[in-house]
Amino acid sequence: MSVTPLSLQAAMNGVAEEVDEAFDRLLALPGDPRDPLYAAMRHAAIGGGKRLRPLLVRASADIFRVDPARSLRAGLAVECMHVYSLIHDDMPCMDDDDMRRGRPTVHKVWDEATAVLAGDSLHALAFEVLAEPECHPDPFVRSELSLALAIAGGPSGMAGGQMMDIAAEQQTFDLPTTTRLQQLKTGALISFSIEAGAILGRIPAEHRTPLRGYARDIGLAFQIADDLLDVEGDAANTGKAVGKDAAAGKSTFVSLLGVERAHQQANLLVDQAIEHLSTYGPEADLLRAIARYIVERDR
Amino acid sequence: MSVTPLSLQAAMNGVAEEVDEAFDRLLALPGDPRDPLYAAMRHAAIGGGKRLRPLLVRASADIFRVDPARSLRAGLAVECMHVYSLIHDDMPCMDDDDMRRGRPTVHKVWDEATAVLAGDSLHALAFEVLAEPECHPDPFVRSELSLALAIAGGPSGMAGGQMMDIAAEQQTFDLPTTTRLQQLKTGALISFSIEAGAILGRIPAEHRTPLRGYARDIGLAFQIADDLLDVEGDAANTGKAVGKDAAAGKSTFVSLLGVERAHQQANLLVDQAIEHLSTYGPEADLLRAIARYIVERDR
Repeated sequence: MSVTPLSLQAAMNGVAEEVDEAFDRLLALPGDPRDPLYAAMRHAAIGGGKRLRPLLVRASADIFRVDPARSLRAGLAVECMHVYSLIHDDMPCMDDDDMRRGRPTVHKVWDEATAVLAGDSLHALAFEVLAEPECHPDPFVRSELSLALAIAGGPSGMAGGQMMDIAAEQQTFDLPTTTRLQQLKTGALISFSIEAGAILGRIPAEHRTPLRGYARDIGLAFQIADDLLDVEGDAANTGKAVGKDAAAGKSTFVSLLGVERAHQQANLLVDQAIEHLSTYGPEADLLRAIARYIVERDR
Repeated sequence: MSVTPLSLQAAMNGVAEEVDEAFDRLLALPGDPRDPLYAAMRHAAIGGGKRLRPLLVRASADIFRVDPARSLRAGLAVECMHVYSLIHDDMPCMDDDDMRRGRPTVHKVWDEATAVLAGDSLHALAFEVLAEPECHPDPFVRSELSLALAIAGGPSGMAGGQMMDIAAEQQTFDLPTTTRLQQLKTGALISFSIEAGAILGRIPAEHRTPLRGYARDIGLAFQIADDLLDVEGDAANTGKAVGKDAAAGKSTFVSLLGVERAHQQANLLVDQAIEHLSTYGPEADLLRAIARYIVERDR
């Protein structure tokens, strides 16, 4: 592969920097009583974070030679959704986390009301970013992006997965139900990110099968890796508390498969994901490198 | 005017019934562990509520002879946003309300986590409803609706107004700042509702000035009437606690103007709103009747 670990790192850093700059512009303080709302959004959104989702948009869009300014915008929208979900998920009534990305969470620095409103605001901004004409000159593309993101974020996607995650504290889920939970909770936004590249490239839905297969596989691999980090990881690297799922008695891929089989399964999924890309040449090398990275990362 | 109080009531009932049916279809239980999420959304969204915003979309769209199925869909989207904001706003960390529309609030029947996720889910569904091709065959219209709703709901609109409302508990706002707060908190979604009719009717932005003037005036009149109901109203009619703003020491139009001047101001705004519609004939009679209703309602 032409994408070395070093050039993957360079691509990640490049996207992360662009996302930070875009958030800095999007979330400029208005200089009125809403300033704490914007400050809370900035705290959660700027600096830190792997920016995996914007990187996936970029890598997918690059296959179809999409203008990087457009893939950045779609990446910014999905990152707005991701950050909003983290803010709400960290609240005391949800996962009750005090630390995120190595910093105190929004409701710890401000309060719960500000956390609710900062999440809600980023949620709305995600759709504002996609619906603006600057996103793409073709309104059909903008509309298709909005529809895909709304489905990925709503009760048939991320929010539905989070509801299942709450139910998982009360009942023991088997492997198929846990897989479905994770496909909704984290898989839906990851799949959106990869699909967004094809939408921006005006690739008809019937020609997106390889990318959808890739997305499904790395989405699951990502979650298995996350569950492994929760067991084997280091709070200093991950920037958040570890061992929480086991403490809550939740079914995870690790509790269901054991550590060794979970590692095997994650690697198998990555091989399979890369297999799906065989119709593409070197233009998909960044997607291939991201698949490997997903199971090898330590945060 | 050709719209009598009786025919206004008939129009309200008709829209309310259509909105309930549409929510019933949109929020059908999936029959899996997400059922409590859908049940919570149904509890908050179906039955009760004046459905003022969908009625405004219908009344505005009717001027431009828009297919009622389309104005219902845009009305459903804005009602998704309104209901999501009520669910979050009722939470203990926000307004801490136990009753809404005469029924216990979502976090009382379920819990706070379900309230967060039910609100987030309705928020995403609002944009799903607008971005689906069934909303309007022209993707430019869908995209314009999404953009307008995102701005009206986000930090430059409703969420920003709610943040100002929280700040109002700590500091005394003057009349201009209170006006600005209310223009964001409740005015933005009301303005969207009226604008949506013009967007669906493909009326160019430069020809929407009369409707925007009407929207601005009834938005403020609505809030003044709400503040008056909080002072003079009856919990049995309004279906929620009254006297809360005074207890929280918040600046309201009533605390700033006094009861009598608040009534005068609301009536003046309604006259002015109707004045803006002078370019329209009887096709705007429903909008005129809604303006009168807004200050005369008892809930």
